[in-house]
Formats: sequence, C-alpha cells, structure tokens
Amino acid sequence: MTARPSTSDLPRGFSFAATACGLKKSALDLALLVSETPAAAAAMFTTNCVQAAPVRASQIHLRKSRGKMRGVIVNSGNANCCTGAEGYAASAATTQKVAREVGHLDPSQILVCSTGVIGAPLRVEKILRAVPHLVRTRRSTAPAFAQFTRAIMTTDTRPKWAAAKCRIGGKQVRILGCCKGAGMIQPNMATMLAFLATDAAISPALLTLALRRAVGPTFNSITVDGDTSTNDTVAILANGQSGAQKISAQGAGFAEFAAALEKVCRQLALAIVADGEGAQRVIEIEVRGAPSAQAADRIARTIANSPLVKTALAGADPNWGRILAAAGRAGVSFDFERVDIRLAGLPVCRRGREHPFDERLAHKKMLAKFVPIVVDLRAGRRSTRLWTCDFTGEYVTINASYRT
Amino acid sequence: MTARPSTSDLPRGFSFAATACGLKKSALDLALLVSETPAAAAAMFTTNCVQAAPVRASQIHLRKSRGKMRGVIVNSGNANCCTGAEGYAASAATTQKVAREVGHLDPSQILVCSTGVIGAPLRVEKILRAVPHLVRTRRSTAPAFAQFTRAIMTTDTRPKWAAAKCRIGGKQVRILGCCKGAGMIQPNMATMLAFLATDAAISPALLTLALRRAVGPTFNSITVDGDTSTNDTVAILANGQSGAQKISAQGAGFAEFAAALEKVCRQLALAIVADGEGAQRVIEIEVRGAPSAQAADRIARTIANSPLVKTALAGADPNWGRILAAAGRAGVSFDFERVDIRLAGLPVCRRGREHPFDERLAHKKMLAKFVPIVVDLRAGRRSTRLWTCDFTGEYVTINASYRT
Repeated sequence: MTARPSTSDLPRGFSFAATACGLKKSALDLALLVSETPAAAAAMFTTNCVQAAPVRASQIHLRKSRGKMRGVIVNSGNANCCTGAEGYAASAATTQKVAREVGHLDPSQILVCSTGVIGAPLRVEKILRAVPHLVRTRRSTAPAFAQFTRAIMTTDTRPKWAAAKCRIGGKQVRILGCCKGAGMIQPNMATMLAFLATDAAISPALLTLALRRAVGPTFNSITVDGDTSTNDTVAILANGQSGAQKISAQGAGFAEFAAALEKVCRQLALAIVADGEGAQRVIEIEVRGAPSAQAADRIARTIANSPLVKTALAGADPNWGRILAAAGRAGVSFDFERVDIRLAGLPVCRRGREHPFDERLAHKKMLAKFVPIVVDLRAGRRSTRLWTCDFTGEYVTINASYRT
Repeated sequence: MTARPSTSDLPRGFSFAATACGLKKSALDLALLVSETPAAAAAMFTTNCVQAAPVRASQIHLRKSRGKMRGVIVNSGNANCCTGAEGYAASAATTQKVAREVGHLDPSQILVCSTGVIGAPLRVEKILRAVPHLVRTRRSTAPAFAQFTRAIMTTDTRPKWAAAKCRIGGKQVRILGCCKGAGMIQPNMATMLAFLATDAAISPALLTLALRRAVGPTFNSITVDGDTSTNDTVAILANGQSGAQKISAQGAGFAEFAAALEKVCRQLALAIVADGEGAQRVIEIEVRGAPSAQAADRIARTIANSPLVKTALAGADPNWGRILAAAGRAGVSFDFERVDIRLAGLPVCRRGREHPFDERLAHKKMLAKFVPIVVDLRAGRRSTRLWTCDFTGEYVTINASYRT
C-alpha cells in the first residue's frame, strides 16, 4: 500500500478535507467527505446494543433521506458514546452545520461518525468552529483524500485505503475506500469506520445489497480482540459521476461492481488486522469440514479470540493443542479424534493427535507476516475463513493506558 | 494462606505423597492421594468436547466403582490430551499400577488426572517406575499434603489449599482441598484440577449433590482467559473416618457440610484467580438488575473476558466505557441508558453516561489487590458474581513461550 492513491483512482465528483480541531492534542481529528451531487448511499452499523449517538443519528438520516446523501463528517479523539442527551444534540448540531456550509442541504443528507474514548463528553463547539474552514478547503485530490484517511485514525499506526476499478457497459467506474481500526475489533457488523466512494450509478437498494454481501466475508470476518465497538460504521456513497450506465438489476454490471467492492473491502479489512494493536502478523483461520456454516464460524471465532492461541502465535510457538482446545470449547460438538490441523503449511495434528513435525521449521515459518491455520473437522462440507492477528505485550501496553 | 495446613486440618484416614518422576525437568510432577479405607467419591469434569485421556478414564472409573474410590494419581508436566490410543493406555496402566501397589485394589477405585502441555506423548514409563516409591512414602501429615499441592502445579506461582471444619451430630468433620490452575481458566466445569478430602460420612449421591452446588458459585464463577481446558477435574473423597454420623438426607448435617464445602471451594477458586498468569489483582464483577440469571451470567462473563477491560484494569485505568461496551456485545438486549456502574466503590457511570468522579482517586483505588465492579442494568431482579484477574504483559510473556 503506497501512501496515497493516484489521481486515476479517485472517483469523479467527490471531495475530501481534514483539519485539527482540537479534540486530539495536535493531530488531525476532523474529516469531511462530500459528493458534489446527490449520491445513493448505504451503510451498516455496529450490532452492539450500546450504540454511540452518531450511529443512531446516521441510522435516522439514512432512513429519512431515503438513501440519497451528500456527505460524511467524522471526528476522531472522542466516540461520543454514553454521552446522554448532549451527545445526540452534538451529532445533530454537527450535521446541521455541515449541511448549511456545504450549501443549504437537509441535515439528513449528512452521515456523522465519531471514534475515540467512550463516555467522555464531546466538546462539540470545537467541531462546529472548524466546519466552515473544513468545507471551504475540500478538494478532489489524492492528497486531500490522504489527509482524510489520517484524520480518522486513533491507535492506528498507519492510514488504510484501497481502490478498485471495473467497467460497466464499457465505461470505467472507480471505487475508493478507507478505514480505521486497530483495537475493539470484532466486526459484526464491522468494528471500525470505513468509508467508500464510487462514481458508479446505482440505486440505494442495490447499493445496500452489494454492501451487505461485501461486508460478510470481509469486515465481518476479522477480529483483533473480540470486542465489538459501539461506533462501527461502514458507509458507501455512489454518485454516478463516472457517466457509466446505471446499474439497475442483478445483471452483469452488478456482479462486476459487487466484485470490485468486495475486493476493496477485503483489502481494507486485512489492513485493519495487519495494523491490529501490537500485532506482528496476520493469522488466517480456515475451518473446513464443518457440519454447518454456523459451526465453522463459531469454531473459527473461538480460535481467533483465544488469548492462549494468540499469545502462542506471538511467540511463533506451534502449540496446536491450544488451537484444538479452543475449538473444543466453541459450543459445537465434534469428534476431536478426526481433526486434522495444518499450521503455516505444515501438518502438525492428524486425527486429533500429534503428527510428527520439525519444531524449528514450524517456528521459522510462523515468524512470517502471514500465517495460515487450517482446521479440518472432517465432519461435513462447510467451511469459513477468518482473519486475526497475534496478541503481544504491546497490545497490553497500548490498552493499559489508553486514556492517559 | 500459610505454607501448609496444621495437623488439625487433616481429615482422618487420608495420606499424601509426591515425587519428581522426570516429566518436568527437576520439579515435583507426580502426586498421590489415598484414602486408607473406601471412600464415597464425586467428581466433575471439563465441558470441553476435546477431553484428555485421564478425564475419560476417570469418568469411566467413577461409574464402574459406583462412587466408591480409594485414591487419586496426578501428574503435571503433560496433559495426556490428544495423545490417541497410547494416551488411554497410559491412563489405564497408571491406575493399574497404583491399584496394585496400594493393595490389590480394582483399578476403577483410582482416579487419574494429568495437567500440562496438550498433544505431546506422555512418557508413562517414568510414572510407572515412580509409583512404587510414591505409594510406599505416603504419609498422613501436613508436609506430605504440602508436597502434594506443589507436585500438581504448572504455571502456578504458589500452591493453593484451603480447609474448613464443621460439626455433624456433635462430631467434628474436616474438609481439606487443594487445586492448581493459572491459565486456560474458564471453568465450566472448573478449568483446573482440584482435590478435596473429607472424613465426613456421606453417600456418593449426596456427595455429588453437595459438590455440584458448591462448584457453581465458586469454580464455575471464575475466569482468567476464557479458555476452558481439556483436563479440568474437581474430585472429592469422603471416607467417614471422623466417626461422625452419616450425612444421610438433606437435613441439618447436609446443610452444614455443604456450606463448609462451598467455603473451601470458594477459597480455592479465588486463589486460582489471584494466581492467574501475570495477574496483579483480583476483579469481582457483579451484575445486578438483570432480567434473568442467564443474562447476568453472559454479561458478567463477556466483561470478565474482554481483553480491553482486562488491560485497562492492568493499568488501573477507570475506563468504564469499555465495561459498558463489553456488556453491550454480550448478546443480551438491554437499555444502556439505564445502566449504573461502580468501579472500586466509586460511582463512575449513571444512567449510561459519565458520573463525575475523581480520576486520581479512582486510579489509586484500582491499584488495590481486590477491585470490585458493579454493573446495575436496572432491568430486573437477577444478579451474579464472577471473579477474574487483570491482563498484563506478563500473561503474554508466559504464554508466548510456554513450551520453550
């Protein structure tokens, strides 16, 4: 991933801006994305029953505007969650201000997102004061987009973005996305913020369908720590400015667009795991031979969130017994004496017992940036893949003093 | 907790022994508990569907002997789990050898337990060679019991034991227990080994009932890392050697015995959490005002196992937002804007939002060895208590290189 996309990656008719409004000590903390013309919109939000004020505000706006939006305003440094009536008022005031400054829009045409500490009152006056400058300085350029991606970061060590193109009826369509997230990551929906912009022409309903399909095997298939955040949002705006024909049915155009969207989402999701708090490596957990998709998912998630598995991976220790023990407590009944496990490409367990392997070689292979684990239950035909990262002392250090 | 019990804590008619048979590099790793006369027995085992060979062997023995046992043989250093047919043969050979050496018993009168690395073949010949010496050197003394408690340790930093007495029909009855466990701890049953000996006279059925009741609010209410082990066993032997009348019904004698048993189990369970891998402090999580006991338990467990909550506790950071966010993803629906939270005695959240508190004072109180957290959902009358520990860099260090 390079520092920023090229100009040709930018979907037509979108502009971006970022500024430091003072919620963080000095870094960028306020970001704006605007479609210069009305855009079809779709979004998915956290499943946590503790939901931040901006999540509720955005849900209402999306319904009220019938999926036709103009932009997204995002602050980092404060989650505006568990902030009571003042929190809702802050989200409302923010969208009102942005709507007015962009050009006398209805506030429901603006989505609002926040990320940062939970429970601290949001100093919304800092945001309101910065909005006019933010709106004025928005640009349809790669550097402006790069600033946007930086302004939404919290414990992220780097900005994360991805782009894809596809052809709809001979015309090129662009999808550009970025996201933030490093801790409190078990998307279900996606435990992070992700923003996608495309110049494809598509109805809100079809865009929602494409987004839902893309999110399942990407953002909803990653976990850093099993903690689902209160602020998760994935939003996409499609403004049709490519000039390509409208994607109107589930035909060829839709399939191509959906595939490109999923590609962008997968890149973003893997970028989150790779930048997981304290992470040294990405772990792919594939569960095969499961009796049902749900069983495969439960087992994969239990392995992916097991502190014992994740710390062994931090030490590049081929401790497959912990993988099997985690699978065994997933609440799915299976015969462990049929199970095969491959670790970093090496068979280490066959029929539930040790398959002789070279410990040193396994350790060496597990030091890689990407370590695949395959658990074959040999009890059915269903499978799933999930991505996580290892669990290091650095994660503890980051999170033992997050607010200080 | 002193280093060892006093002689008056020892239940009559039990003897103990320990030795270093070579499974660990140099430490004690083989332990024996014998009732010199037949004893009523009860035991509970792991709910993990990956079960170690000794767990299965002990389950069969308990059924076969109809709850009349003579002893327990335990090794540390190897879990004898995922070890195939040889693993079962090893457990069988061990109980046969012990039964023969103690005095031509039936092997089903001996329980067998193992704890340590999963998946590595057990060098059973080392155990078999050591058994005659072990049996010969057993003693009914406090030092022998203290050796027993040391020999069952793995990553434990200290032996854990507890004792209680009660009167049955004017006669004193003693209950003495010990346990091991520091990681892979989310008992359900109890993710550890615990052994209890009593000179009370009680039938196996009534003993099972008392044990089941005692285990729920004690061993099954602790978690270190949410990982349920493959070898968990809690076993109790009651040989009636106190001379007290037989506890035959659920009358006064039973209630007193059950209360004493629960007291011992609670002390042992809390000792496990206090000695949790890398732990600095014990955290008590109380969920009140829940709509059902199950809801309370799910929320308490999700909070207790949240890496973000546990790392904040390691840093003594009063980050109550993470506690509420973890509750919100527990799969229980509740109105978070009714929730009150107290942290180390201080109200920090009222009606789902920050209740002003002194950050420095909260931090100072959270540096204590015991930190209570109370989450009141204000949505019903059910409550639960669960104990866990904080999550430090030391946990990661211990588990990143457990096998090396």
